[in-house]
Amino acid sequence: MARSLIWNGKATRHSPPTIVGHGKGVPKNVNHAQCTKSIVDYIVERSLEEIVLVGHSFGGTVISKVAEAVSGRIKRLVFLNGFVLRDGFSLRDEIPPHQAELLEELAKESSDASVTLPFPLWREAFINDADLDLAKSAYAQLSPEPSLPTKDKLDLKKFYSLDLPKSYINCTEDTALPQGEWGWHPRMSGRLGLYRLVQMPGSHEVIFTNPAGLADKIIEASRD
Amino acid sequence: MARSLIWNGKATRHSPPTIVGHGKGVPKNVNHAQCTKSIVDYIVERSLEEIVLVGHSFGGTVISKVAEAVSGRIKRLVFLNGFVLRDGFSLRDEIPPHQAELLEELAKESSDASVTLPFPLWREAFINDADLDLAKSAYAQLSPEPSLPTKDKLDLKKFYSLDLPKSYINCTEDTALPQGEWGWHPRMSGRLGLYRLVQMPGSHEVIFTNPAGLADKIIEASRD
Amino acid sequence: MARSLIWNGKATRHSPPTIVGHGKGVPKNVNHAQCTKSIVDYIVERSLEEIVLVGHSFGGTVISKVAEAVSGRIKRLVFLNGFVLRDGFSLRDEIPPHQAELLEELAKESSDASVTLPFPLWREAFINDADLDLAKSAYAQLSPEPSLPTKDKLDLKKFYSLDLPKSYINCTEDTALPQGEWGWHPRMSGRLGLYRLVQMPGSHEVIFTNPAGLADKIIEASRD
Repeated sequence: MARSLIWNGKATRHSPPTIVGHGKGVPKNVNHAQCTKSIVDYIVERSLEEIVLVGHSFGGTVISKVAEAVSGRIKRLVFLNGFVLRDGFSLRDEIPPHQAELLEELAKESSDASVTLPFPLWREAFINDADLDLAKSAYAQLSPEPSLPTKDKLDLKKFYSLDLPKSYINCTEDTALPQGEWGWHPRMSGRLGLYRLVQMPGSHEVIFTNPAGLADKIIEASRD
Repeated sequence: MARSLIWNGKATRHSPPTIVGHGKGVPKNVNHAQCTKSIVDYIVERSLEEIVLVGHSFGGTVISKVAEAVSGRIKRLVFLNGFVLRDGFSLRDEIPPHQAELLEELAKESSDASVTLPFPLWREAFINDADLDLAKSAYAQLSPEPSLPTKDKLDLKKFYSLDLPKSYINCTEDTALPQGEWGWHPRMSGRLGLYRLVQMPGSHEVIFTNPAGLADKIIEASRD
Repeated sequence: MARSLIWNGKATRHSPPTIVGHGKGVPKNVNHAQCTKSIVDYIVERSLEEIVLVGHSFGGTVISKVAEAVSGRIKRLVFLNGFVLRDGFSLRDEIPPHQAELLEELAKESSDASVTLPFPLWREAFINDADLDLAKSAYAQLSPEPSLPTKDKLDLKKFYSLDLPKSYINCTEDTALPQGEWGWHPRMSGRLGLYRLVQMPGSHEVIFTNPAGLADKIIEASRD
């Protein structure tokens, strides 16, 4: 549910870093500041410049904070059905109350306050464009999501003052957030001010259902 | 304007039943309960199981009530730009007032309280993606719509308590309901709770303008 | 940003007229009535009949007023992400306040109260589907837009009483107006009453990014 990809402007490509607390078998007791720091460190240690930083879903909150920390290294931010939080709000504040309650219940049922969406829900609302085999194999690759980073309220004043190019990729069948009043686009995208809109068919998990098509759209969203 | 298709889970296919009061040359003085009963009887008489039930437009109200009657026989409900009524409301309650008034006027002008949309309106708002020849030949296949089933207020408490898989196919150029505040999606679809969204280009009458494309989307909406 | 194309019903084709005050090196001190008159004169001088009149963006306001003047010569109006103003309103009244302020500032900075959008804004919000080379070459073809025609409040009572066929072509990635509350569709389109909706992928400047695809859609929007 959350990925961030990094390409630098010279067309060399780096394998995408993993946000701390994400992935299988790692401790889930991390907060949002630690998530941000893990990506900032990755960038600084490698002296990356002219980065196009792609944030998917929760990843949108991370690239927003990373941009505050290393804005001079970033060429463009690309939100892929990513959260664009209002200043002072958390991810949990930006989703429908019934979804926030479900996340809280799932976290309580886990041993480490992490969240794993039940397959039937994820299959219908997140990967609606897959057949059952792909849905199952993709689900097997998911790992529990830490809770704290979705509950931390973020100071985004600097983010909203940055003059960075931004793009928003909206997958038109993404129902991870219900379309309409609570939807990704134009609710989240519209907060970016001036931004480039790119759209494609697909669900929230288009990286599994149409990776080549998504790559084309990331290029379209990333170019000058 | 209203069709319901039935497939059973074993991939054999039944010719779609006709809702009572629909079709040419049949009595139009039927109510919604009779519409529902005609489909329930069709299912029970044939001992159908594991059904995927597709309801288009008005047909959405019928599959909702059929699901209440024979939920154990149904594998999934598929709404194709179909009405998902609020509990206690009628179809007429869910369309813009000027449309409801037009339907009432047309019913009064007929000898049997049935409704036939004038061609110019239907051609522009219902089959906007057809050329004129196709629009005319499709229009010739339509039959008058009985009024009562669109005026009956439906008790849908059981429908909203059922734990059945549901899909919504939205044709993105469907303007039979005006898009936006009164539109099919996400207004109608969002009432389904957890559901699978499938979209395709096309008008309200995509069954005439792109039947093969629609068949693909029905399969996508129907699979596990 | 504003074009109007004319075809007559006999499938001969006229080169599109240029609205007065538009184009490079012409005086920009024209008002909306003069814009309308320049198109009406073009039509009357050539004795054109059975016209399909296409208005893009600002051009939507012009075809609305031209229709009032020569409704008998017009077969259909086609709005291509065009403004459909409310009676008594100006174009500036129909765009978000921050956009109206920007237009006013840009006009003040010019020597002739004309508006030229800065390239970075235009590139991101108007031609988001182009690569940089195409964006640059298209931008070089633009000319300053006169201000008065966007500030004149238009009497559109007759327009709203006309019984003319109308179509609306909506490019689904057009963010010249922000999508949602202030968007082209269904906000502008919905004001047309009965109309034919045609959609296609693309930005506000699809005439540069996909002219052949646009031509197909204009034909689809224009046919009987």
